[in-house]
Amino acid sequence: MSTPVTAAILIIGNEILSGRTKDANLSFLATSLNELGIQVREARVIPDLEDVIIHTLNHLRSQFDYVFTTGGIGPTHDDITASCVAKAFGLEFGLNDDAHAMLKSHYKPEDLNEARLRMAHTPKGAILIENPISKAPGFQVENVFVLAGVPKITCAMFDNLKDRLKGGATVQSATLTTDLTEGVIAQKLGDIQDQFTDIDIGSYPYFKEGAFGVSLVLRGTDENRVDQCQTTVKEMIESLGGKVIYIKSLEV
Amino acid sequence: MSTPVTAAILIIGNEILSGRTKDANLSFLATSLNELGIQVREARVIPDLEDVIIHTLNHLRSQFDYVFTTGGIGPTHDDITASCVAKAFGLEFGLNDDAHAMLKSHYKPEDLNEARLRMAHTPKGAILIENPISKAPGFQVENVFVLAGVPKITCAMFDNLKDRLKGGATVQSATLTTDLTEGVIAQKLGDIQDQFTDIDIGSYPYFKEGAFGVSLVLRGTDENRVDQCQTTVKEMIESLGGKVIYIKSLEV
Repeated sequence: MSTPVTAAILIIGNEILSGRTKDANLSFLATSLNELGIQVREARVIPDLEDVIIHTLNHLRSQFDYVFTTGGIGPTHDDITASCVAKAFGLEFGLNDDAHAMLKSHYKPEDLNEARLRMAHTPKGAILIENPISKAPGFQVENVFVLAGVPKITCAMFDNLKDRLKGGATVQSATLTTDLTEGVIAQKLGDIQDQFTDIDIGSYPYFKEGAFGVSLVLRGTDENRVDQCQTTVKEMIESLGGKVIYIKSLEV
Repeated sequence: MSTPVTAAILIIGNEILSGRTKDANLSFLATSLNELGIQVREARVIPDLEDVIIHTLNHLRSQFDYVFTTGGIGPTHDDITASCVAKAFGLEFGLNDDAHAMLKSHYKPEDLNEARLRMAHTPKGAILIENPISKAPGFQVENVFVLAGVPKITCAMFDNLKDRLKGGATVQSATLTTDLTEGVIAQKLGDIQDQFTDIDIGSYPYFKEGAFGVSLVLRGTDENRVDQCQTTVKEMIESLGGKVIYIKSLEV
């Protein structure tokens, strides 16, 4: 079995911590990375504070194969991510000629003011990530990918960087939803988990139209085992008199 | 000026990190805490792994005035939050008589099986948090509040614990949205930020119907200052030929 390839996601922005803005990037990045065989192991949301950004980034990049940051790379005073990344790596921070060219092709000379020029500054040696929407690029330094926070741009940037990533075994999953509640299935589900130690069985209760039910998600890198586990779980539900309301077999 | 009261939110669950489930609790908790004068300074999403939960919880509870966890307190094998909290605090973990009574009043004796009884186990001395929806309670140990992950239950539990929280000065905010882009306002906005050091000015670009615009959020504990800053920002937008599309004055 190959070593898992891991990632952390670092969401930078006061607006997420104040509750004003709902993050939309974590779910997208996690799903996209999973499709590439990269497992997200941690996500953090931190404020636009230099010390916190530098410290957190240095911790995460030493712990995980990849780190993806979102937010804080625009032209305003609260956009400090890029310079913090330079400081975290101990790199000079300055005008990047390629990024400068991208902005020059987009803005009229009189509109390319000092603030916008900030978006062409990167840590020295950074590899750019193209932004087809508003042109100002993201960038990569070693295992750290620095992306915009506006979800449309985050997605577009991810699309432009994913060929650089090297994934491991892809996690396959199967989902079964039943009208039984967690309390009814818990004991037998635990027994199945003990039997399938190579499968991660998640149990997610929901509450809809006044009734509880549960979705069971089976995840593992060996599709035969996920399949076998799915059959076992289905039989367990039926043996307890439950209905399988929904079943989604093997999907990446 | 009073010392700020701070909090961290710890979201526990593989389903958030796999991208399968979109977290809905962070935004709710952050907004609700802010209304009480408690500032969320960090949020983390971590997997259902004992070592990670214990280590992260011990770090966060030492750094912030309050910690709120969500997820992992149901009856299934992957619900390990409660026992991890006990280990983090070095407390015994066992049947809580009051929690047991809550479950007995809800389930018929034959339905209160071993798995469901797990939901009546807490660290010794924990103070319960009532759950009006599915009865199995959350609990508090010192500055840590352990809540369910199903959003309806998280909200209901928060409602039942908020009288225990002691907030500091409430952060007031005002919002202005303009059709100008960040690059146009950035320089002058930075000058205003330098002038209003007690106000946190956030600049949040958006992309809607093919056009960029920006929302500016002014946050501070002194409402007169927030008001003055709003006037100054409004004048700045107008001086640059922009429109204020939306304005929302002082709100908690």
